[in-house]
This record gives sequence, C-alpha cells and structure tokens, in this order.
Amino acid sequence: RSGEMAKLAQLIDNEVFQAYATYATIVLLKMMLMSLVTAYFRITRKAFVNPEDTASFGKGESAKKYLRTDPDVERVRRGHLNDLENIVPFLGMGLLYALSGPELSTALLHFRIFAGARIVHTFAYLIPLPQPSRGLSWALGYIVTISMAYRVLKTALHL
Amino acid sequence: RSGEMAKLAQLIDNEVFQAYATYATIVLLKMMLMSLVTAYFRITRKAFVNPEDTASFGKGESAKKYLRTDPDVERVRRGHLNDLENIVPFLGMGLLYALSGPELSTALLHFRIFAGARIVHTFAYLIPLPQPSRGLSWALGYIVTISMAYRVLKTALHL
Amino acid sequence: RSGEMAKLAQLIDNEVFQAYATYATIVLLKMMLMSLVTAYFRITRKAFVNPEDTASFGKGESAKKYLRTDPDVERVRRGHLNDLENIVPFLGMGLLYALSGPELSTALLHFRIFAGARIVHTFAYLIPLPQPSRGLSWALGYIVTISMAYRVLKTALHL
Repeated sequence: RSGEMAKLAQLIDNEVFQAYATYATIVLLKMMLMSLVTAYFRITRKAFVNPEDTASFGKGESAKKYLRTDPDVERVRRGHLNDLENIVPFLGMGLLYALSGPELSTALLHFRIFAGARIVHTFAYLIPLPQPSRGLSWALGYIVTISMAYRVLKTALHL
Repeated sequence: RSGEMAKLAQLIDNEVFQAYATYATIVLLKMMLMSLVTAYFRITRKAFVNPEDTASFGKGESAKKYLRTDPDVERVRRGHLNDLENIVPFLGMGLLYALSGPELSTALLHFRIFAGARIVHTFAYLIPLPQPSRGLSWALGYIVTISMAYRVLKTALHL
Repeated sequence: RSGEMAKLAQLIDNEVFQAYATYATIVLLKMMLMSLVTAYFRITRKAFVNPEDTASFGKGESAKKYLRTDPDVERVRRGHLNDLENIVPFLGMGLLYALSGPELSTALLHFRIFAGARIVHTFAYLIPLPQPSRGLSWALGYIVTISMAYRVLKTALHL
C-alpha cells in the first residue's frame, strides 16, 4: 500500500494544500480555545447551567444559586457561535479552493487575512473593543470566504 | 511541482467532485446569507445583544433600551443554527460520498435534493410557512444525508 | 474518465482514509441523532418555540401555552451544540491528519477514542451522569483533536 500512501503524500506535499492545512488548523485551534475560555468564566464567575455541575458546591439551595447566566460567559458563548458560523464555511470553501489550483501567493493571502480577521474578531468580542472593530473583522473574513467561493464556482461549476 | 498540481487538478476535474464542490458552495453561501439577514433584522428592529453595538444610539438608558430580543431576529438565528446542524453533516458526508465513486446521476440527485430542501427550509422558516413545510423540508435533507452515510459505510467501513 | 475515478478510488481505498471515513460518519450520525431526540422531547413535553409548530393544538391561547422552554429539551440542545463545537474540529483536523500519512494503528487509536468519548459524553449529558463524567469525556475528545492538530502542523506547516 506504499503506492497509495505516496499518492496521499502528494496531496499533503502540495504547497497550497499545506497552507490550507496550516491555517485551517490555526482557526480550528482558536475556535477550540473558546471552550476553555467559557469554562474559565463559568468557574471564576460561578455561573453554570447544568445542575450536576454545581454538585460540588453543596446540596439544595446553596448550589442552586450558581445556576445562573453571567454576561461574560454569554459573551464568550456568542463569540464561539460566531466562530462556528464563520469557520465552518471557511473550512469547506478553503478545502475546495485549495483543490481548485490557485496561485500559492493568492491562496496564502486569502488564508492569512481570514485567520488574522478571526483572531482580531475574537479580541474585539472578548475585550470588547468599540465598534466597528468587531463588525469590520467579521466582514473581512466573510469577504475572503466569498472570494474563495467565487473561484470554486468559476473552476468547478457543475449544476 | 506541476506534477502535483496536475494530480490535484484531477480531483477537481472529476465530475462527481465538481458537483459536490458546486452544491457545497451553494449551501454554504445560503448559510452565510443568514448572517446578513440577522444583521438586517437587528438593525431595522433595533434589537441588539452587545452593549458596544448600541453605542451609536447614544449613552446610558437611551441606548440600553435597544438591548433586547426581537421575535424576527430570534427566528433567523434559529434558522441559522438549524443550517449549521444540518449543513455540517452534509459537507462531511458529501465529501466522503463523492470520494466513494458514486454514479454522477445518483450523486447529482443527492446534492440537488439536499440543496433544494435547505432552500425551501429557509423560506419555510423565515416567512413562515405553515407546518409541515418546514418539517418535511428538514426531513428531506436529513434523509439524503443518511443515504450518503449508508453508501460511505458500505464502501469504506474500517472499524 | 475511468482513470480519474481510479485515482479517487485510491483515496477511499487507503486504510487510514477508510478509518477516517468510518469514524467521521459515526460521529456525524450520532450528532444528527440529537435532532431526533430534540424533536422527541419537544413533542412529548409539548414545548415548542415556533408558533406555527403549535397550530395543530388549536388556535389562540390554547396553543400558546405550548410555546415554552422545557429543561429536557434545553439539555438536549446544549448537548447538540457541544457536539457541533467539538465534532466540527474533529472533521477538519481528522481529514488533514488522515492525509498526513500516520500509521494505521495510531490513526485508529485517535479515531476510536474520539468517537467513544463523544458517545460517552452524550450519555453523560442526557441521563445525566454525575460530574466529572461529562467533563472527562469532553476533555478526552478535545485532547485527541489537539494531538491530530500537532501532527498536521508538524507535517504540513506552511505559514
């Protein structure tokens, strides 16, 4: 099966595909970090949603008071959901775009702007920075994804 | 590296894969549109969730009244989340299904029904149409995804 | 085009890729099951969110009382969202990891632990099991995904 492995290796050896793999990994790790930030705020703010999560704080009413929403927790969760809504399209479009044979420099430009925009978006959401910081960083990632979609449809349209 | 590029080009030149690329792009663009619809309703209904988003309406209490939920905004957000829950499985299963070597006509049937069902689902959710419009369009997309999963497991099962 | 089809077949014939296809399908089907569990609880608890979903219960006030939240429904929905937050990174990282040429036994270990952890996580969330069952099963899946990300970056880093 070494022949097949070699074939696969050619995909991962392709520079555009390597760039996609790198930036897809970066944005996914960034998104995964939101889970840890949520957990951090839930624990430090003592704001939980599942009764079984507050059992260690005692029984009955003493634990029940920690079943509450906290503005910081909700803010991180909104940032996490916004990541899902925007990073899922990037992962799908980015893969198809990488397979559509773009120039390496053009591909890198797309991937770098998207990853940078999502990192800025996270800081803008969590600090929070005054608008339009969050809005503009969101829009930048959105436009990059549309640009990749355009190339994929131009290269591969088969309705 | 032109040899590798040629190998990659073979993937995007495959008609089944082209069809996948086309319909994956269509449903992702449709899902991304939900962000714009949410923004449109937030702005026209003046219903925001982040204090920094209402800063342009003035300071203090005058801006605070726009931090509220609106039924139309919540409806679009539910549609967006339903897209995520259903389009993520389609993207994953569709890619594996396309690589499992189905007939082009069968693959196109799957992709077209899924994309059509999700577009109907969006209209059924946003207008809204009376049930069971939304339920049936949801179920149709679900069944198509199960059908692709069945073929992938039949072709590639390796536990 | 049979030559191209053969090339594609080589990807799906690769054992590591077959293992990825199998476990990606399993976790996606498991995630899709959450939609059915949500529908089951919404119907048996009579707890709906869209007015058009309660129309069959009569008109006006008699139907309006079913527009409410139910703790069991909300619990399933949280489990579903947690699946999205964790299975999306697995799908993306797992695909890139499978293409990075790992040993079959190592890859199977990653995929099996992730799928097992997410199945345990679902039971821990829905029953619910006392903590740290849910926390540990979540962490196990998280660590597996990080491990795959590490290998992808080591193999393909191209910033």
